Amino acid sequence: MPQGKLHIVPLGGLGEFGMNCMAIRWNDDIVIIDAGMMFPEDDLLGVDVVVPAFTYLEENRDKVRGVLLTHGHEDHIGSVPYLIAEMNIPIYGTEFTLAFIEDKLDEHGLLDNAKLIEMVPGKRFHLGVFTINPIQVTHSIVDAVSLAIHTPLGVIIHTGDFKVDPTPPDNKLFDLHAFAEYGKEGVLALLQDSTNVERPGYTPSERAVRPRFEEIFLHTRRRLFISCFSSSIHRIQLATELAYQFNRKIALVGRSLTDATEIAQDLGYIDLPAAAFITPGQIRDYPPEQVLVLISGTQGEPMSALSRAAVDNHRHAKIESGDTVVLSSRVIPGNEKAIYRVIDHLARRNAEVIYSDGSNPPVHVSGHASQEELKLIINLVRPRYFIPVHGEYRQLKKHAQIAASMKSAVGQVIMIESGDILEFDELGARKAGQAPVGRVCIDSGSNADIVEDLIIKDRKHLSVDGFVMPVLALNKHTGTLESDPEIVMRGFAGATDDATFLEEARSTVRRTLQQSSLEEVSDAGVIKEKIRADLRRFINKNTQRRPLIIPVIVEV
Amino acid sequence: MPQGKLHIVPLGGLGEFGMNCMAIRWNDDIVIIDAGMMFPEDDLLGVDVVVPAFTYLEENRDKVRGVLLTHGHEDHIGSVPYLIAEMNIPIYGTEFTLAFIEDKLDEHGLLDNAKLIEMVPGKRFHLGVFTINPIQVTHSIVDAVSLAIHTPLGVIIHTGDFKVDPTPPDNKLFDLHAFAEYGKEGVLALLQDSTNVERPGYTPSERAVRPRFEEIFLHTRRRLFISCFSSSIHRIQLATELAYQFNRKIALVGRSLTDATEIAQDLGYIDLPAAAFITPGQIRDYPPEQVLVLISGTQGEPMSALSRAAVDNHRHAKIESGDTVVLSSRVIPGNEKAIYRVIDHLARRNAEVIYSDGSNPPVHVSGHASQEELKLIINLVRPRYFIPVHGEYRQLKKHAQIAASMKSAVGQVIMIESGDILEFDELGARKAGQAPVGRVCIDSGSNADIVEDLIIKDRKHLSVDGFVMPVLALNKHTGTLESDPEIVMRGFAGATDDATFLEEARSTVRRTLQQSSLEEVSDAGVIKEKIRADLRRFINKNTQRRPLIIPVIVEV
Repeated sequence: MPQGKLHIVPLGGLGEFGMNCMAIRWNDDIVIIDAGMMFPEDDLLGVDVVVPAFTYLEENRDKVRGVLLTHGHEDHIGSVPYLIAEMNIPIYGTEFTLAFIEDKLDEHGLLDNAKLIEMVPGKRFHLGVFTINPIQVTHSIVDAVSLAIHTPLGVIIHTGDFKVDPTPPDNKLFDLHAFAEYGKEGVLALLQDSTNVERPGYTPSERAVRPRFEEIFLHTRRRLFISCFSSSIHRIQLATELAYQFNRKIALVGRSLTDATEIAQDLGYIDLPAAAFITPGQIRDYPPEQVLVLISGTQGEPMSALSRAAVDNHRHAKIESGDTVVLSSRVIPGNEKAIYRVIDHLARRNAEVIYSDGSNPPVHVSGHASQEELKLIINLVRPRYFIPVHGEYRQLKKHAQIAASMKSAVGQVIMIESGDILEFDELGARKAGQAPVGRVCIDSGSNADIVEDLIIKDRKHLSVDGFVMPVLALNKHTGTLESDPEIVMRGFAGATDDATFLEEARSTVRRTLQQSSLEEVSDAGVIKEKIRADLRRFINKNTQRRPLIIPVIVEV
Repeated sequence: MPQGKLHIVPLGGLGEFGMNCMAIRWNDDIVIIDAGMMFPEDDLLGVDVVVPAFTYLEENRDKVRGVLLTHGHEDHIGSVPYLIAEMNIPIYGTEFTLAFIEDKLDEHGLLDNAKLIEMVPGKRFHLGVFTINPIQVTHSIVDAVSLAIHTPLGVIIHTGDFKVDPTPPDNKLFDLHAFAEYGKEGVLALLQDSTNVERPGYTPSERAVRPRFEEIFLHTRRRLFISCFSSSIHRIQLATELAYQFNRKIALVGRSLTDATEIAQDLGYIDLPAAAFITPGQIRDYPPEQVLVLISGTQGEPMSALSRAAVDNHRHAKIESGDTVVLSSRVIPGNEKAIYRVIDHLARRNAEVIYSDGSNPPVHVSGHASQEELKLIINLVRPRYFIPVHGEYRQLKKHAQIAASMKSAVGQVIMIESGDILEFDELGARKAGQAPVGRVCIDSGSNADIVEDLIIKDRKHLSVDGFVMPVLALNKHTGTLESDPEIVMRGFAGATDDATFLEEARSTVRRTLQQSSLEEVSDAGVIKEKIRADLRRFINKNTQRRPLIIPVIVEV
């Protein structure tokens, strides 16, 4: 028996939604599985992005051999730049995942020195003491893998995110055989995605949306707008193919969608003549029935292209009476109100809005395995230890209960949360203490700011740059200020006592309001974002500081 | 033909969720249908309750003959006290609705002078120029009615909230015959509830939850907690009956549930011996398997009994490992995160949590009509004009589309929103201008404060009493303050410059934090409410002012 301890250390994503990151350690070798981000809750005023604290990795930086990315979703790759800025370790991912990462690192000015290494499903490689075997799986994003990690104590299988799609549009099949073979040989631990554990049955195949899309293309008489997650390459592929078939030119609006589509074209997922595409500026040159606009903003994000188009505030994407808008996406919990607000704005413009409302055939299907798929994988793998991952506490719990009921397929179920150290040795497995974990909040502002904000760690943001809080008493129905805007500042050195500065900040806010429509002002999400953007620009120009900007609207 | 104009003037609830209120006017006679409230959006920091502005009614106060209540839900009766404080008009409602209103008026010190008049389904009465006929319907609350209002130009039918339940638990049947007869005689306008217009098919009967409840009682081995809306008398009746049958004593925890159960007992909906009930203080005296706790807080409201019990902060309701907690309610959009937080806390205590997750038989059914029921009523009534009511814009729109497609049953569909005046005369119907509408935000604080806040109108709250904003930089993981709490005050005369006052306010906030558990501190909703309550008490005691208190948590 080899001498040593195997540690599984989740740094994010267990007991919380998003920000998936996990360290696997054997003595002096650590590999990291995924480095994701989460979107902040509403309570986190003024914060754009939350990433895991990498303290545990920093404390062991000489041992970290690399980060393995299971797929290209933000909750799995979103904090890679922050990790890489801290320790320039090799980044392993499949072709498509690396293409996403490249874009991201480029944005942060980190691409030149990055060590990107492609993983090919089924092709094993070594990393420190570990042997890694990426297993091809199906998910809502293309090129996703599970990871089999061979350790001195046995094989750990981490599913990543997956569903068992029997008919993936790209015909890259879920590698059931690999799971079966590992199961036959013996698996130490299975770590499985809990996202959809509350859903009974099977998740429908990605192909299930095709009939609905065809119907929509067939019946739409005017301009067609489709919004989906930018990473939903299958969905973008389907929409663009149907557009070509139905003689609609394709315009891409929104940077993330444009970038993703480019990648999909580069890698051969989308293969249409260049003439199939037009620029956003050309939309107006074509009759409405000859245009498909792929537009970003499925979650009602206040500054997204779709939200702006919905209140008639987008230069190119104009939504008019009789147009059709398709939201081909799920509602991420917490975003309901924002999304319904966008739908209401669209309905007021007499647009036909089609969204995921339970009707059939579906306009969106989930990418995560439901209960029967989870059980299938458990039965194939038959692990000695089962550990639910990726989920809030109630989901991990439910997943643990299901696995515990499968007595002849699972040895023992262990529930851990972010920060718990799960230790294995020749005697068994146990929780063995705590690793330092936490959330680091990043106020990225407009996209260009991210680079400089990179080195925000140790939670020093506030104490270094302070915060600025514009407080507005607003009459929602008239869109006018009930009193002069208040600007509250704390810890924001260099300007606090400057009456001129304060007055100019106030004027900035007033100007933002004057330049906004009543519809924008009545939408607190939108107007807060506008105030924040304008005020940020003003402050950066005048002070070179980057305080947290937290607009507060008091409605009267 | 009679000389005059008939006006339908929605003052709330059309194009927004909640706050239902509508005026029907013929020359010098106005009747009001419902006077509801809405719960504020998150954006409305520091506001508890939103009610319609009654400006239109105030401007015509000599013409207002009374308010007709269709049923006892808050979004239909919640602003009655504010209306009555302004103009003491007669209040019409069914027996059960009036019992609810009595409680409410009593709380506000308005009961003694109130004019309460019982409506009996099928029994017509006169109000000014109008004849009113309440029609018995089914809904999630008992004793709900639609209203047929006979006007000089014809009959208007306002459905109120309803579903067509073929098997209501109280056997008070939906009066289909009344709708049929009106349809035969001719109806000027049908105003129909749009809440569930996005759902195809039929809504299940209230009886559908019985099998699931029976199963839960049968299998629960320890303490059982059931949470439902306090107005769900059918649900409370079912739970208490089963408790009696399964030898569990019933404890009521939470004021609204206790009050509602008392009313239900008074009116004969619940008929159990007194010995079936115990006080919350007696819960600990019984073995866990002999107790049912009916507990309020289905929406994860931070200060509700259930939320507090979930973080072990309730004196009597202790939730322990192996207990079962049932959430027999829907998730009101916007409350998802709060509800899931409560479920997570419960799961951490190893409680079994059963909630409405789409599984069958259902643990909750809706009280609103789905598409086929809506069409049934339209076909029975065959109105000349159809006007969708109660819904956000997209729902009114969808409802209008469905009605417009029913060409031989509907003359014309008209969409109006809150504030639109819809005018009828011998020539037809048209929008004829705007009535003043708006939302009045009420910061009720702890329940006792409501009375004095009653006369907040004209949006003067802020300018009179100002606001106090405690700003905390909190380390969520340790629950400690990263810096001294800031107290920002504006327009709050008499204390702004008093350094002692500020320091004491800071101490109050510090004390609240010290007295809270880590679980409470990490739950922004809970900790904000606690800070607000304590600070309010401190400020009221020291200044006799009632500023808006808006805690802001900046996480670092």
